[in-house]
Amino acid sequence: MEYRIEHDSLGEVKVPKEALWGPQTERSRNNFKIGQQMPIEIIDNLLQIKKAAAIVNQQIGNLSAEKAQLITKTVDQLLAAPHHDAFPLVVFQTGSGTQTNMNVNEVITHIANQTAGTQLIHPNDDVNQSQSSNDTFPTAMMMAATQAIDKLIPALSALIRALQEKQAAFKTVVKVGRTHLQDATPITFGQEISGWVSALQHDLAYLKANQATLLELPIGATAVGTGLNTPDGFDQAMVAQLSRQTGIQFTVAPNKFQGLANHTGITMVHGILKTLATDLIKIGNDVRFLASGPRAGYNELNIPSNEPGSSIMPGKVNPTQVEALTMVCAQVIGHDTTINIANSQGNFEMNVYKPIIIYDFLDSTNLLTEAITSFNHHLVAGLTVNQARMTELLENSLMLVTALSPHIGYERSAKIAQKAQREGLTLKAAALASGVTESEFNRWVDARAMTNIDRQSK
Amino acid sequence: MEYRIEHDSLGEVKVPKEALWGPQTERSRNNFKIGQQMPIEIIDNLLQIKKAAAIVNQQIGNLSAEKAQLITKTVDQLLAAPHHDAFPLVVFQTGSGTQTNMNVNEVITHIANQTAGTQLIHPNDDVNQSQSSNDTFPTAMMMAATQAIDKLIPALSALIRALQEKQAAFKTVVKVGRTHLQDATPITFGQEISGWVSALQHDLAYLKANQATLLELPIGATAVGTGLNTPDGFDQAMVAQLSRQTGIQFTVAPNKFQGLANHTGITMVHGILKTLATDLIKIGNDVRFLASGPRAGYNELNIPSNEPGSSIMPGKVNPTQVEALTMVCAQVIGHDTTINIANSQGNFEMNVYKPIIIYDFLDSTNLLTEAITSFNHHLVAGLTVNQARMTELLENSLMLVTALSPHIGYERSAKIAQKAQREGLTLKAAALASGVTESEFNRWVDARAMTNIDRQSK
Amino acid sequence: MEYRIEHDSLGEVKVPKEALWGPQTERSRNNFKIGQQMPIEIIDNLLQIKKAAAIVNQQIGNLSAEKAQLITKTVDQLLAAPHHDAFPLVVFQTGSGTQTNMNVNEVITHIANQTAGTQLIHPNDDVNQSQSSNDTFPTAMMMAATQAIDKLIPALSALIRALQEKQAAFKTVVKVGRTHLQDATPITFGQEISGWVSALQHDLAYLKANQATLLELPIGATAVGTGLNTPDGFDQAMVAQLSRQTGIQFTVAPNKFQGLANHTGITMVHGILKTLATDLIKIGNDVRFLASGPRAGYNELNIPSNEPGSSIMPGKVNPTQVEALTMVCAQVIGHDTTINIANSQGNFEMNVYKPIIIYDFLDSTNLLTEAITSFNHHLVAGLTVNQARMTELLENSLMLVTALSPHIGYERSAKIAQKAQREGLTLKAAALASGVTESEFNRWVDARAMTNIDRQSK
Amino acid sequence: MEYRIEHDSLGEVKVPKEALWGPQTERSRNNFKIGQQMPIEIIDNLLQIKKAAAIVNQQIGNLSAEKAQLITKTVDQLLAAPHHDAFPLVVFQTGSGTQTNMNVNEVITHIANQTAGTQLIHPNDDVNQSQSSNDTFPTAMMMAATQAIDKLIPALSALIRALQEKQAAFKTVVKVGRTHLQDATPITFGQEISGWVSALQHDLAYLKANQATLLELPIGATAVGTGLNTPDGFDQAMVAQLSRQTGIQFTVAPNKFQGLANHTGITMVHGILKTLATDLIKIGNDVRFLASGPRAGYNELNIPSNEPGSSIMPGKVNPTQVEALTMVCAQVIGHDTTINIANSQGNFEMNVYKPIIIYDFLDSTNLLTEAITSFNHHLVAGLTVNQARMTELLENSLMLVTALSPHIGYERSAKIAQKAQREGLTLKAAALASGVTESEFNRWVDARAMTNIDRQSK
Repeated sequence: MEYRIEHDSLGEVKVPKEALWGPQTERSRNNFKIGQQMPIEIIDNLLQIKKAAAIVNQQIGNLSAEKAQLITKTVDQLLAAPHHDAFPLVVFQTGSGTQTNMNVNEVITHIANQTAGTQLIHPNDDVNQSQSSNDTFPTAMMMAATQAIDKLIPALSALIRALQEKQAAFKTVVKVGRTHLQDATPITFGQEISGWVSALQHDLAYLKANQATLLELPIGATAVGTGLNTPDGFDQAMVAQLSRQTGIQFTVAPNKFQGLANHTGITMVHGILKTLATDLIKIGNDVRFLASGPRAGYNELNIPSNEPGSSIMPGKVNPTQVEALTMVCAQVIGHDTTINIANSQGNFEMNVYKPIIIYDFLDSTNLLTEAITSFNHHLVAGLTVNQARMTELLENSLMLVTALSPHIGYERSAKIAQKAQREGLTLKAAALASGVTESEFNRWVDARAMTNIDRQSK
Repeated sequence: MEYRIEHDSLGEVKVPKEALWGPQTERSRNNFKIGQQMPIEIIDNLLQIKKAAAIVNQQIGNLSAEKAQLITKTVDQLLAAPHHDAFPLVVFQTGSGTQTNMNVNEVITHIANQTAGTQLIHPNDDVNQSQSSNDTFPTAMMMAATQAIDKLIPALSALIRALQEKQAAFKTVVKVGRTHLQDATPITFGQEISGWVSALQHDLAYLKANQATLLELPIGATAVGTGLNTPDGFDQAMVAQLSRQTGIQFTVAPNKFQGLANHTGITMVHGILKTLATDLIKIGNDVRFLASGPRAGYNELNIPSNEPGSSIMPGKVNPTQVEALTMVCAQVIGHDTTINIANSQGNFEMNVYKPIIIYDFLDSTNLLTEAITSFNHHLVAGLTVNQARMTELLENSLMLVTALSPHIGYERSAKIAQKAQREGLTLKAAALASGVTESEFNRWVDARAMTNIDRQSK
Repeated sequence: MEYRIEHDSLGEVKVPKEALWGPQTERSRNNFKIGQQMPIEIIDNLLQIKKAAAIVNQQIGNLSAEKAQLITKTVDQLLAAPHHDAFPLVVFQTGSGTQTNMNVNEVITHIANQTAGTQLIHPNDDVNQSQSSNDTFPTAMMMAATQAIDKLIPALSALIRALQEKQAAFKTVVKVGRTHLQDATPITFGQEISGWVSALQHDLAYLKANQATLLELPIGATAVGTGLNTPDGFDQAMVAQLSRQTGIQFTVAPNKFQGLANHTGITMVHGILKTLATDLIKIGNDVRFLASGPRAGYNELNIPSNEPGSSIMPGKVNPTQVEALTMVCAQVIGHDTTINIANSQGNFEMNVYKPIIIYDFLDSTNLLTEAITSFNHHLVAGLTVNQARMTELLENSLMLVTALSPHIGYERSAKIAQKAQREGLTLKAAALASGVTESEFNRWVDARAMTNIDRQSK
Repeated sequence: MEYRIEHDSLGEVKVPKEALWGPQTERSRNNFKIGQQMPIEIIDNLLQIKKAAAIVNQQIGNLSAEKAQLITKTVDQLLAAPHHDAFPLVVFQTGSGTQTNMNVNEVITHIANQTAGTQLIHPNDDVNQSQSSNDTFPTAMMMAATQAIDKLIPALSALIRALQEKQAAFKTVVKVGRTHLQDATPITFGQEISGWVSALQHDLAYLKANQATLLELPIGATAVGTGLNTPDGFDQAMVAQLSRQTGIQFTVAPNKFQGLANHTGITMVHGILKTLATDLIKIGNDVRFLASGPRAGYNELNIPSNEPGSSIMPGKVNPTQVEALTMVCAQVIGHDTTINIANSQGNFEMNVYKPIIIYDFLDSTNLLTEAITSFNHHLVAGLTVNQARMTELLENSLMLVTALSPHIGYERSAKIAQKAQREGLTLKAAALASGVTESEFNRWVDARAMTNIDRQSK
């Protein structure tokens, strides 16, 4: 491979001839051959920060219009085309993300100077002006986290709406309830779904109520939080400019020392993601067990047959969407452990687990967004009930005996149930054999009434 | 040991003669010899529920005044004296908490009937009237969780206030900043503390903003969430009565199916507790490293000497309060994993991990309350700075060289720093040796100005 | 309360008049009002260490026979009667366990001097001779961990044996297999159990193969691992003496610096406990789903009815033992997270999370021992199959169609299965309706042959 | 994009014209747009399995030599060139990995038939003969896990050797010890390193002692573990053939039901990885704190300056390799939580979290291998001590006072230490001021003797 020679404060560095990056990126690329590439979302927000800084620095009078426009144009140009290859550094680098910040500074400088045909732009003095990796990187983290949650919320809302439609459609479909996995008194399938909906609504409400904590940008903190070398008002101007660029109303972090040394907000919001994950596992398990069978399972639900289950056996429909979803949820819960450890390990003016914190946060959020959407489109949309089976199981159930008790007394009712269980009869058959008339039984044993669905609807 | 014979639907049970409990408690006591006793907070809230139910059932006309008053009086009597021994069942029992609910029903019945001198009260028909373990137990969980957070909030607030006092006291005490554990530009100790305060304020704000999710009581759901066998309005009446009894404005759970099958709210609020735990580890580590030494460490802080560190060596003060605090935090983060798993494992109309969920939640909350209070009283209250050491380290530091650069240029500044590092000089000595005058140095190198503390105070 | 005045190097301490402990214990008791009491297993092993040290120190000539015998006798006396009350300190104290080590030194001294009628024994110079909290506490941790695993192994072995008996009993009971929760080709229930047995056998083998890592005692390390102030050979003599006292062949830790600063062995063995926990959840879930019903579930298994499930409905048997077991497993997995964090946080010559590490390790081990035993006695012992139901589900299943294919071709077989599914027929009915004779069907569709149970038995 | 039409049992599928895969892959590609691509290690081992099956099936007489050779040749050809693009499916698909198994079957078939110029090979009948996704996928998991550990072991061994060289080099370099972060009695840096080495040696020993559990291949289990449709001896023949192909002595899983439904071995070995991760965090933290400074930290160690720390300030060397390493460790601990959850969630004859289990296992192992190697080469190799600083801190330390006590008595020694602490003197200065002569002091206070390094070396 061909190289060009570049210099930094440690000396000469051989950089691949066509690379857009510079010496500090190249050092990191060689020193950290570990794991995954830094997420594009972080790169893109760092680019936005560089653009905003150029504009703000020009307004303040610290950067020439020529330089500012060149930086701005270069950022826009990068964002307009595929560009991840220009940012080859990995997550597992320095814990402040400094090397990725320099990667961004270097690439902008390289392209801008190519455009200018001269060494007009300096990566530190111009592109990084009034900034430090220590504030740009956590600022990019908060921006990316906000944008990721902004994608998750509509995906989750769409799933809730789809489930609410099912809830309405199956509002009065009566089926057996189950507690401890044992047959219990009747509910409607709409009621069962309403529990799923309510759990997800809680999670959605938590996200909406708490996502503002992610808007707090520590830009302007520079190296240790004091804002050394920033002009007065730089932080507010940057936040206002970034808000304009992104259409998101970011805020100035209330305390910049905390903004560099703690990632409290991300840790807390990820706590909501893991809560959501636990609820989704519960819902996913309900769906797949209710769809288990077709013959030797619950078989109350039909789920779409998206792939061949078995080439010879009809009716074998594997709940693959649930499997993908619950694997995602397990991953999210594991990421929560990682983020907890990482956030606990700040020291003094810095937390040096920044890249892994945001990598896992974005991975969790993106996986949830994608898996929820997939589950919604490929499973919930096609979910139907096997009403005959629900009715069969309900009529077979002995829990309806509780409805006889007010009419024929506890003791006689219990004997009917015992007879049914002992002889493998339906409750009705046992009741008729014990002297209850069919019209009495039909009048007294009203599974729908036992669900209180009509009371709730008032 | 002497026994009395009691009966339940499975047959005869030998109950210890003097036991206040009945046959179902005794069966559980024998069948589950596993681990810790059910927390008293759950017992006490179940007792409150029984009292409220007696009052509400009397109002509705389903329970005689005599019975209601007897139940009410029995509950008050139990709560007024030590009573945990009457509730011997363990956390690791049935996952619905049914056995503890029956334990409460049986003890109230036993005492009430002793008081009455006759078998007036029936544990199921009277004490448990219009209830099910499936709704009383999660209701008691939410009540206990709320009360536990209500104790944590003032403890955390007190710590924040104590730290804010230190922040004010040390507002202008300039010291070296540290990033990547390496010397960085100056900050004041007040600024450093402000970062700690801000993290804790975030956590406190999260708790306050989200604790309402714990107020949602699923009472009235009975066995599967449908409210089977409850009179109309029983849920609202119960919630109102429990609010009166406890002075806490509880609410009717918006969806009772979710209230039985998911513990979303507890899982989410515990996510805030784990976030708090991560911030406390960071703060604790900062304190103990800044107090490390006395000679071979940072030695910037003095912490109270609460116990003999070394009988012969003065100045060895082990940061024992931090050690207790951070062990608590590790436990809380572990409990979060447990609760995540537990909340994910509901099935259909029930989650059968209720006892471990509330046990870990209460353990986390109580441990945090106690450890925060202990840390506050036994460490923060007595925290002082070793100002001479802070100044020594600051003057020794080479990071102040950045203040020379605007006056003598980057290159000459760098050479001064290199000389200082190479020859083991202070920056000042190296500067003077390089031609900077003392008055220039003192004018230019103004560590306090570098902290921007005066800008921030405007 | 009445007090006596005692002294330590920090000054006067008021100790409750009748307390067996001394001033350092009392300081800790007041300074750490946080959480649970230090486990008795740690106290008892510290007592053993004190006894061993007295004997070894006498042998070496550093302690008079009179003092050694007095200490030895005092330890034996303490161990012979309930004594936890004399050791009131909590887990959440100093992270080295120093205060509990001093508690033990003080209580022995107090009782010994009462016995002697004079101040013969000194807690540091005599009881703690050639020791430091920094080596006695981790030594006690390893001893307690070993003893706890020594209790778990027989409990787990007993469960494996009980399951193996069931495996043999149900070796040829053919039932439907299930993958993705969907009906699959037949297996025998014995085969299904053999999978459970194999998982537990793996876990048991891991415990046995790795428990030797817990035998490594760092006694003799004293304060930092160098063995300062210990006579030559003290470590070997102590380990030999402790082995004699306990009947367990402990070994001298190969590196005492690691023995104080890392708890690698405990962390690793707890990794086996969490693996066991995951397998037990899987087995528990299988049992409770196979026993679900009685009418609207799988209903293949009958589990013992240990408590009233429902007073009126026969056949409702809640899988309460599984619920307790799986809650224990969730707790163990959470404890693993705690121990991971704790073991990662050693610094230099010490890890100051010792108490929480051993507390959670012992809690996990004891909970598993108790829950496994309870599950074994109260559930597995009484587990029976519902053979009629297994046969019904199997005959109902469409997966047997694969056995027709070699005889009548893939296409005709698939059509029979489709007909059965569409019309709700058994496979046999559909086959007969499609021209297969009954004797052909019975000859060709041999579910038992499909299990290969006879091949495996060769 | 251009398409070709393919068919499977659900009907027509439009497959991209140039794609090497077939209809079932294409369905999965469209249905699961979630997260990361299936790791190449799984693809490659599935390819090995297909090759082995072709060879074994030919030997048994179930596959023609022509077909067998064509399959074998196709696999070799795929493995010889970049081929990940032909296997586009993601981790978050069906939990059995069926779709990736079919992807492999389809790609082999497509290429083989292109080579043959005719539809000679059938993906199910030929490539998948006597196999099921349910046994090939977990077999590939075990193979990939073994190979990954086989890479980690030499990386870890190399780090241990490098540290042992440092241990030898610094064997007698005396420095202050630290417990509770407080100055303690002296140790040598070699001793300190020996603790690190010992921890890693424990972890290495655990890996070696337990990795055989990963050799157990469940191939031959087919769909549910019974081996339905496999010829006698197929399992042994496959394991022998796979051992030949890979040079690893795999074994037949002792119980194939467990091999499909539990991933006990992977969960347990990952428990060793997380233990290793906790030890590495401890070591990493020690290194970075000992290298903290250069002026306001411990500054006992010099680490290589791999990147510019600060352009103006010499001596600021950020411990970036440690930061990458500890981020990796946090990720591994989080992955352990995920794997625990995943392994607990098997049901009946199948665990449907297979892809996430192996994905996280491989990610952990690869990250550890890479980060350990990077840390070794870029940090440990260049680690040196700042001996002057170590000596300065040691001489400054007051803990050496314990060496005076035997000569001048406890009380006089304590007064000297107090004087030194009060007046900021070295211990020597205070001792001389208190009447100890310099020659006495030098004779009595022998820090090296206090380390017992010479005793240990005997």
